[in-house]
Amino acid sequence: MRADDNILLTRTDAGTPMGEAFRRYWLPAMLASELPENDCPPVRVKLLGERLIAFRDSMGRTGLMDEFCAHRGVSLWFGRNEDCGLRCPYHGWKFDVTGQCIEVPSEPAESGYAKKIKLKSYPLVESGGVLWTYMGPPETQPELPGFEWRHLSAEHRYFSKRWQECNWLQAMEGGIDSSHVSWLHSADMHRDPLHRSTKSANYQADRRPLFEIIESEGGLYIAARRNAEQGHYYWRITQFILPAYTMVPPYGENALNGHAWVPVDDHNCMAWTFTYHPSRELTAREREVMDGGGGIHTRLEPGTFRPLANKDNDYLMDRAAQKAGLTYSGVSGITIQDSSVQESMGPVVDRTRENLCSTDNAIIMARARLKRLALALMEKDELPPARDPAAHAVRSATYVLPASETFLTMKDRAFIARAGTSPVAI
Amino acid sequence: MRADDNILLTRTDAGTPMGEAFRRYWLPAMLASELPENDCPPVRVKLLGERLIAFRDSMGRTGLMDEFCAHRGVSLWFGRNEDCGLRCPYHGWKFDVTGQCIEVPSEPAESGYAKKIKLKSYPLVESGGVLWTYMGPPETQPELPGFEWRHLSAEHRYFSKRWQECNWLQAMEGGIDSSHVSWLHSADMHRDPLHRSTKSANYQADRRPLFEIIESEGGLYIAARRNAEQGHYYWRITQFILPAYTMVPPYGENALNGHAWVPVDDHNCMAWTFTYHPSRELTAREREVMDGGGGIHTRLEPGTFRPLANKDNDYLMDRAAQKAGLTYSGVSGITIQDSSVQESMGPVVDRTRENLCSTDNAIIMARARLKRLALALMEKDELPPARDPAAHAVRSATYVLPASETFLTMKDRAFIARAGTSPVAI
Amino acid sequence: MRADDNILLTRTDAGTPMGEAFRRYWLPAMLASELPENDCPPVRVKLLGERLIAFRDSMGRTGLMDEFCAHRGVSLWFGRNEDCGLRCPYHGWKFDVTGQCIEVPSEPAESGYAKKIKLKSYPLVESGGVLWTYMGPPETQPELPGFEWRHLSAEHRYFSKRWQECNWLQAMEGGIDSSHVSWLHSADMHRDPLHRSTKSANYQADRRPLFEIIESEGGLYIAARRNAEQGHYYWRITQFILPAYTMVPPYGENALNGHAWVPVDDHNCMAWTFTYHPSRELTAREREVMDGGGGIHTRLEPGTFRPLANKDNDYLMDRAAQKAGLTYSGVSGITIQDSSVQESMGPVVDRTRENLCSTDNAIIMARARLKRLALALMEKDELPPARDPAAHAVRSATYVLPASETFLTMKDRAFIARAGTSPVAI
Repeated sequence: MRADDNILLTRTDAGTPMGEAFRRYWLPAMLASELPENDCPPVRVKLLGERLIAFRDSMGRTGLMDEFCAHRGVSLWFGRNEDCGLRCPYHGWKFDVTGQCIEVPSEPAESGYAKKIKLKSYPLVESGGVLWTYMGPPETQPELPGFEWRHLSAEHRYFSKRWQECNWLQAMEGGIDSSHVSWLHSADMHRDPLHRSTKSANYQADRRPLFEIIESEGGLYIAARRNAEQGHYYWRITQFILPAYTMVPPYGENALNGHAWVPVDDHNCMAWTFTYHPSRELTAREREVMDGGGGIHTRLEPGTFRPLANKDNDYLMDRAAQKAGLTYSGVSGITIQDSSVQESMGPVVDRTRENLCSTDNAIIMARARLKRLALALMEKDELPPARDPAAHAVRSATYVLPASETFLTMKDRAFIARAGTSPVAI
Repeated sequence: MRADDNILLTRTDAGTPMGEAFRRYWLPAMLASELPENDCPPVRVKLLGERLIAFRDSMGRTGLMDEFCAHRGVSLWFGRNEDCGLRCPYHGWKFDVTGQCIEVPSEPAESGYAKKIKLKSYPLVESGGVLWTYMGPPETQPELPGFEWRHLSAEHRYFSKRWQECNWLQAMEGGIDSSHVSWLHSADMHRDPLHRSTKSANYQADRRPLFEIIESEGGLYIAARRNAEQGHYYWRITQFILPAYTMVPPYGENALNGHAWVPVDDHNCMAWTFTYHPSRELTAREREVMDGGGGIHTRLEPGTFRPLANKDNDYLMDRAAQKAGLTYSGVSGITIQDSSVQESMGPVVDRTRENLCSTDNAIIMARARLKRLALALMEKDELPPARDPAAHAVRSATYVLPASETFLTMKDRAFIARAGTSPVAI
Repeated sequence: MRADDNILLTRTDAGTPMGEAFRRYWLPAMLASELPENDCPPVRVKLLGERLIAFRDSMGRTGLMDEFCAHRGVSLWFGRNEDCGLRCPYHGWKFDVTGQCIEVPSEPAESGYAKKIKLKSYPLVESGGVLWTYMGPPETQPELPGFEWRHLSAEHRYFSKRWQECNWLQAMEGGIDSSHVSWLHSADMHRDPLHRSTKSANYQADRRPLFEIIESEGGLYIAARRNAEQGHYYWRITQFILPAYTMVPPYGENALNGHAWVPVDDHNCMAWTFTYHPSRELTAREREVMDGGGGIHTRLEPGTFRPLANKDNDYLMDRAAQKAGLTYSGVSGITIQDSSVQESMGPVVDRTRENLCSTDNAIIMARARLKRLALALMEKDELPPARDPAAHAVRSATYVLPASETFLTMKDRAFIARAGTSPVAI
């Protein structure tokens, strides 16, 4: 990759090509539980390099706006959230959830001074357990994303997010790179209580799948093919959905899993994990495991979104476990296995030094698609694809087909998320 | 404000306009207690971006000079303070309090080598419990500042200093901005044992004072006017004294309070608090409260000047106390309420994004006066004002006047610090 | 010194004059004990600004190569060291000790893809308890250094290394600057159990030695002359060996001591201490003292090479001990006395501000020699001196001679390291 392409794809501040592209999509900004009730404490949020403050007002309205008071620049994190607005504690300036200043106490109300003051702000909409924001021009704001879990009740889903200390792209590339599962996570496939499937694990013993990557409306179908019974193939389909979502292929009766890889700034991202089952509630046992950091969730430092295992403690590397094969890399937990290697590449990996191989085709195609849409927006003001809810109402799947059939045979039955249907999974 | 004016006012390294202006005044460099006895340990001091070392020699003389040995650059903080000089431990070079090298052991005394070596140094003069320095050209050195507390005995005063992690100007602007008291400190006004005055507190319930700002010889009179009894105004006068002093309006029989806001470097300052009473000794109770971090003092990390509540622990934010109104911003203590919001603005707040209002006139006028004097010094080599001791021999005051009289009616009686007289305060 | 000369001598990244000079010598990279057995954990090593990984494979072969996988840039510190290679845990790429890729699992072996992939690598050779590397062009690789301790059995030697947080040159200048011993270490000379010699200590009471510095084949003889008995001189000879070794003059029957000052990057170096005795084994008592951080070794933070006494804790400064003369600078331990003052000079001391004197001649001559060889290599492609093992097969010495004789009288007898002979020392 050329150095300038690496810059193009990894930088997301306002005004950058990829940053503007991100600003044409709804993004998961916060867990709904971060603003648990009316007039609860405001929360600092950094997204696409912008420092913002989120709050839920006395009427339950939520807003996301510039972190700093328009008056003298104090962080509104210190603000008082009361009486339908967030009041700066320094001189009492008050703002509503749209960023509109609604009171400047020192000025007579009749002066109209407050009306002229407005903080930069973005919509913050709760749906499906997530607070979504859209940071682009209002006139191009699409409908909310169509992920099926947005319409599931809380009993069907379990979401978490964690801070990852590297650029969003190298984190997301792990999500679309299904070939690393056979290596980095190989010791966990048979053991993890939420990711085991004897049948799938047996098929996956073949560490050299062939990949077929096909552009979908919303991103990519990444299909890994392995030999199954005589004359049959075992298929695992990962969905990549623009701009930064991936869906893990399902195992048997387990819940589905998806990720979002949201840029915080150029050197940090928030890695979201969405676990859900469209046709059954999650079990108490599943929740217990995930609460303990199992599945593809992880335990966090209390009061933060930073994993307990992080680069400051070498991810709690256990060389004896590595040697014994209890973990493949010495690091415990699927999530931290990913974050450890991805963060070790540096804040932004130097992609001019890579040597890509056949299993990297999904990464190559995803980069090409991202570059294309970022340039089209910048140069031709063309809105990017996958802004329609239908682009997100999809599923990953695993299945066996006769060798004579293309994996797309199953597209209609397996890849579309239809309410009330179960995932197609082995 | 224009970006270049923000740079002009905030940068204080040698050679900068504002840095040179600061170098035409005596500045409080240290508490006298930091050099408690002859031959005590040397102390590292950073002022106006310069790294310096202070020490008190065997004869009690104090000096402030370049931190680093003239020989090979070792920090003289490791030096031996003995026999009327500070000796570098690396090769034994020895310096007196003027920075003059008085011994280079490897060279024969008759060579005169030591005489040719002199560290940059500044006078360090103890007076009134403070060690003062003057970092400008010797030929323009003024008399020591005329603050009345310089002439009070130790029983009358209680001084402290704390490190604030932002530029000096945004810290000082808090000191001349008397309008924030009704907001940020509103929950403390009735409760703090050293700052309550039932009468004043009642008047101050009016959160919309009118401000009259008038240039004084040494800075500004900042007069806040509120309605009092029929046909009368309640006045609170804050004094701003160039280049970086403020005086808090007094309450009843309480002690007086003043601040100095001394640049450490462009991103840090030392906030001094001077509590004193000109006509009575401070009480044991008052000292006890201040020792515990009360009043406008604060508790520090042991062995440092960093407050216990600081940005690394979010100033011990207590959302329940904020919600209950026990504190206005959730942060405890008048001092930390100020430092928390001021530090939250960033190391140097971007003043091009401000929206100033009528209560910011004192800030606007102070900036204008600072800019004027910095440019006059740079362009016309004109010495700045307020270098005469009389400029500092002043007081703040609070009083009620008939509405027909200007607050300056009280100037002679209330604003001049005359030995033996009591403050004018309600 | 001119600023550009300071840059020339202190920067050691690839392509810099001094960096290229260092790359023409074998350098001590690690203690042999850091790779204690076959297939042990790989170790991160930073040398001359390069981030590298070291490992010992299943056959006992050792290698040093680029820390990051050639595929996608993951740190090979997470790698599995097994079956004669280090395997990246992300996708299973495997490398041998020469950096050659020997397996890319996703590609058919017959494709020959792996053969085309090779990481930058350097030889890593164990000898004398040290793992040596050579980071220059293979065609100019010399023989291993000829230090006599390379040929001693483990019973004769005790080696340690510690991280020093400053540029290599200012650390090494301490090693060739024998004049500071009479100051910085003066309180320790009589007390340290491994460095006392009543006789030498008595001679060294004279703090104004005269220095004679003479170029040796491999560096410098730094001879300090003090008065001894009538008509005699007491000589202490320090050897400086290019590019970054120093040898401490011996005391009586004590072991010999040498240092290497190896650049980690421009702001950090690794300070090695080699304690050994050519003609006797080290005693249990000597080992016990050194294990406890005595001699010129020091106690380290567990699991690291950072001293327990470091700049974050002000080197455990003890002002009372300084005042009482138990230590000269207040810092305990010869090694930390050195690192504390050298680190206090800043990451790279500004040599344009120095004032050198007669006792700095060794430093001046060492700098000149380093500059000469760096420029000769860069401008004339001339290999630097002291690459022949004989250059390192030398000793420091202390002795008394009649005043009429030059210290070089003893060169053949005292400065050459001959197997089985004892050091010349008082």
